[in-house]
This record gives sequence, structure tokens and C-alpha cells, in this order.
Amino acid sequence: MRRIAEVFERSLGLPPDGDVWIGDDAAIVSVPRGRLVIATDAAVAGVHADLSLTGLDDLGWKALTATVSDIGAVGARPSYAVVDFCVPPGIDPVLLATGVAEAAAEWACPVVGGDVTTAQEVAVSAAAIGVLEGEGPPVLRSGASPGDRLLVTGPLGASAAGLRLLRAGLREPASAIAAHARPLARIAEGVVARDAGAAAMMDVSDGLAIDLHRLADASGVGVVLHTVPVAPGATEEEALGGGEDFELVVASPDPAGLVDAFVAAGLRPPIEFGRCSADRAERTLRGRPLERSGFEHVIG
Amino acid sequence: MRRIAEVFERSLGLPPDGDVWIGDDAAIVSVPRGRLVIATDAAVAGVHADLSLTGLDDLGWKALTATVSDIGAVGARPSYAVVDFCVPPGIDPVLLATGVAEAAAEWACPVVGGDVTTAQEVAVSAAAIGVLEGEGPPVLRSGASPGDRLLVTGPLGASAAGLRLLRAGLREPASAIAAHARPLARIAEGVVARDAGAAAMMDVSDGLAIDLHRLADASGVGVVLHTVPVAPGATEEEALGGGEDFELVVASPDPAGLVDAFVAAGLRPPIEFGRCSADRAERTLRGRPLERSGFEHVIG
Repeated sequence: MRRIAEVFERSLGLPPDGDVWIGDDAAIVSVPRGRLVIATDAAVAGVHADLSLTGLDDLGWKALTATVSDIGAVGARPSYAVVDFCVPPGIDPVLLATGVAEAAAEWACPVVGGDVTTAQEVAVSAAAIGVLEGEGPPVLRSGASPGDRLLVTGPLGASAAGLRLLRAGLREPASAIAAHARPLARIAEGVVARDAGAAAMMDVSDGLAIDLHRLADASGVGVVLHTVPVAPGATEEEALGGGEDFELVVASPDPAGLVDAFVAAGLRPPIEFGRCSADRAERTLRGRPLERSGFEHVIG
Repeated sequence: MRRIAEVFERSLGLPPDGDVWIGDDAAIVSVPRGRLVIATDAAVAGVHADLSLTGLDDLGWKALTATVSDIGAVGARPSYAVVDFCVPPGIDPVLLATGVAEAAAEWACPVVGGDVTTAQEVAVSAAAIGVLEGEGPPVLRSGASPGDRLLVTGPLGASAAGLRLLRAGLREPASAIAAHARPLARIAEGVVARDAGAAAMMDVSDGLAIDLHRLADASGVGVVLHTVPVAPGATEEEALGGGEDFELVVASPDPAGLVDAFVAAGLRPPIEFGRCSADRAERTLRGRPLERSGFEHVIG
């Protein structure tokens, strides 16, 4: 089995003086002062990606992006990642590492350590730490109050639509294909939302409907949706139940201020799609029950 | 698929005020001042454990213990861990979590987040952060100099011997069985060795022979062994080539001082077994070549 240092040989930068990245038992890193945020996520071939439709590099990208998305979803910035590769004989972990390294560069979150293990199926587990700047609290999913408006950083369902299109042998619209193969984390958006006083936040990793139920459960509120922002090429069902869009859902008492903060930061303005209510049993979309359906993480 | 919060429902303590553990997108933790240390390791059924011989809980224990061992091997203490479980349908992740939680309690390294994913084979990936106290450097594998003595925190080969005994249907000696099912990390030993001026250190995870070659390669020295400390019930071959003993190999310019520091801390004194030489091509055991053999991480 190749060592993690070989796997990342070409894609690693040099650590700052005093830091130690891949090559020793553990990595030594320095972080700015602030509270630490930790998250981990795994991407498994056949569950999170069909390797006949997307590449090993895409699987690596998805694993690290899902993890940094979790860090962004509390309003923090990712700092450093470590990855475990599970790789059957005959599979080149360098292809996985290429996608991980591209995501690491995209999200400014260097991979500083890891492990390569023989296994029967391809899996990538990515853990990362991040820093929560300043003194304010993190933006948790439990912070929403009745009356807060619900906004999302972008339309949803593109990843599920991309998978459906790829299965049908199609490559258009390219935005949906890219959303499935190379989903984006909303790091800057999460930081701006926290600075703008977001009350609650989470990333849409398992599907809007089930993730909203989780936010409502954690906050003890109801959710009343008047619309569902649907991505180009996607259906409303995909927007509600498809996972891995990684857009951020934000509950805010001041939606106009949130939009202004996004625009001031040069970010696409978030889309308002509903509100929180005092009746925690109330979970509706256009007056009908919002089903608790979500991405099952099983492809096939 | 069950959520990580359910999986750890019974075994998690309560976070300190202001911290957030399992249940949100990411965990928020506070660490004492000091540099951070990060490591990750995976344990895969059929590779790191034969589930017909040891339990799911043992696999979970081994994953977290391997990771905290890496943190200890630079002289740091583990602080917090996150885990990814890959679990086929019909396997209860709570059994895995039980072993992880027992290891977390043993190594004072709470599990603060994680993920449960459907997969075809059982795997546990554990990442952890730790803190390197004080101002001194970490103890890397690259720090050894010619003349340094080589010591190890305990005799080796017990894990490999335990696997051999279990395969033969035997349960004795119990120390070897336990060393295979529930290996120990040498956290206190690593901290004491760093305080006592250890020049280089690493944990024996893949086997003494291959790990010594790595230490020698990283340090640019040769290694001359006069003996191999063999655990009760193990063979010298198992001590040299068996992995997952997790004892620490230490290169020290002052072996007597190192032993004194261990005794003063109430720890078993480390065993001297060789020295580093200036000829980096010199890799010998009792005058014969030290083969670069190690644990292949494939059981079967």
C-alpha cells in the first residue's frame, strides 16, 4: 500500500516554519486565536458517487467539500484537513488525492495528514478543523425563533438532477452535471451570514425537506414554506429530496439585512422561501404537509 | 441510516459551556493554548481485524487508539475526536461506537462529531486533534542523531501473537489476546519522553523493522540493534514484523535520563535495544541486515 506522502507528493504545498504536515505520525499546525470547529464526512463509492458516471477525483473532491461545508455551516472557516483513503487493490489513490487536493486548494484548507488503507471498496473520509473568529457564538441549527425568515444561498436539486442526467447519458445542463460531480461549499456565505446576525444555519446535505425538519426540531419551531427554490434542470422533488447541494439554509430575524450583507460582500443574494412559526408541529409547503423525505445515500 | 447522535446516545458526556459536540453540522471545542496536533487513522474489517475473531467494539477501539497513538507519538496529548462509520445494512453501528467510546474514555479524548454511512464493508475512520504543550518542539521521527540510543516503551509482537493464537482457537496468554483486541496507546509515555529530551520518536504501527527504517530514513542515520524486545507469547519475527503494537520507539542522547524520567512518572522503564549510527546505510540486527518487512494490513 502506498503511503499518504506518496499519494499527495505532487499536490502539497510547504508548511509554514514550525509546522509539520504529511510525513510524521501526526501533523503540527498553528491556528489563529479563536474557538476550534471540527467536522468529518465520508464519501463511499456506490453510495455517494457512481464511479461509472463520475471520477475518483470527483469522489475525493466531494468528501473534502462535504466536510468543509459542515464547518462553513456554523459560520467558521476551514483551516486544515486530514484524509483516510480506503482503496481496493488496482485503484490508484493518487486519483482520489487529486480531487481532494483540488478541493483543498479551492477551500484554502490544506491536507496535512492522512492514511491509505487496503479495502474492498473505495471510500474517502475527510476530517477538518476550522476557526470560529471573534467572540460571537457559532450559528447552530438550534437558534431559530418564531418569525425568523428562512433563506437559502442558492436554488436546490442540482446535484440530484446531475445524477439523473448522467444516468441518462446526458451532459447538459453543465451546471447540474458540475453540481453533482464537483459540488461547492458556501464558506464565505456562512461567515457573512454569521456576521449579519443569522439566528440558525445548516447546510443542505441530505435534502431541503429533511434538513428543514432537523432545523425545526432543534430550534423548537415550525416551518412554513411558500416556495422551493429549484435549480435549473432540476425538479421540485429533487430540490426537496435530493442531497449534497451544500447550499446553506439560514434563519434570520432580518432578511433584508442578510441580503444587503451578501451583496456588500459580492455574494449572490440569498433567496427567501419561508418563515419559522411558533407551532412546532406546523411543517408546511404551500399549505400542505412538508414530508420528511431525504437523500438515502444509496445509489443504484 | 442512523445518525451519529443516536449511535453515541448512551456513551457521550456533556460538553463544557459554550462547546457544541455531536448534533450540529460541526463541533465547537475549546483547547488550551498551544500548538495543535492532528492525526487520522482507519480500521477496516478484514484488514485490521477479523470479525470472526474479535468484536465490532474492538474494531472501534482500535481505530481511535491508532489515531491517539499517532498524537502521542509526537509528544502531545489527544483532546477531541471525530469518527466516520461505514456500516453495511444489518450491522449495528452502536457496537462500533461502544468500542470507540471506551477508547475515548480511556484516552481522555471525547468524540465530538461524526458521520454514519452505508457501505459494503465495515470501516471506522477516526480523526483527532491534540495539544502540544509548552514551547518546545514536537518529537518527530526525523530528529535522531548518530550516537543516540534506541529505546522502546515495551516489548513487541503481542498483537501479531494474539491474532495467531485466536486463529488457532486459543485464548492464552491473555496479554497477547488483549494486545490484539484492545491495543494500548502510550500517551503518558510520549509526553514524558518529550519532556525528557527525546530526539526522535514514533509509534510502532506497522512493525519495528519497517518503522525503524522509516525513522532512520527521516533522520539520515543508520540503526544498529543488539536485541529485539519480544513480548510474552510472541516470536522475534512477530516483534519485528507484526504491527499495531503502538509502543513508542524513542531515540535519545541520554538513555539513563529517559529511564529515570519514566520511573519518576510511575511508568514502566523503556527498554534499550540499539543505537543510531552515522552510516545511514547501516541497518543491522546482531550484525545481520535488518529487513524492511512490516505488517501488510491484510488479514486473510
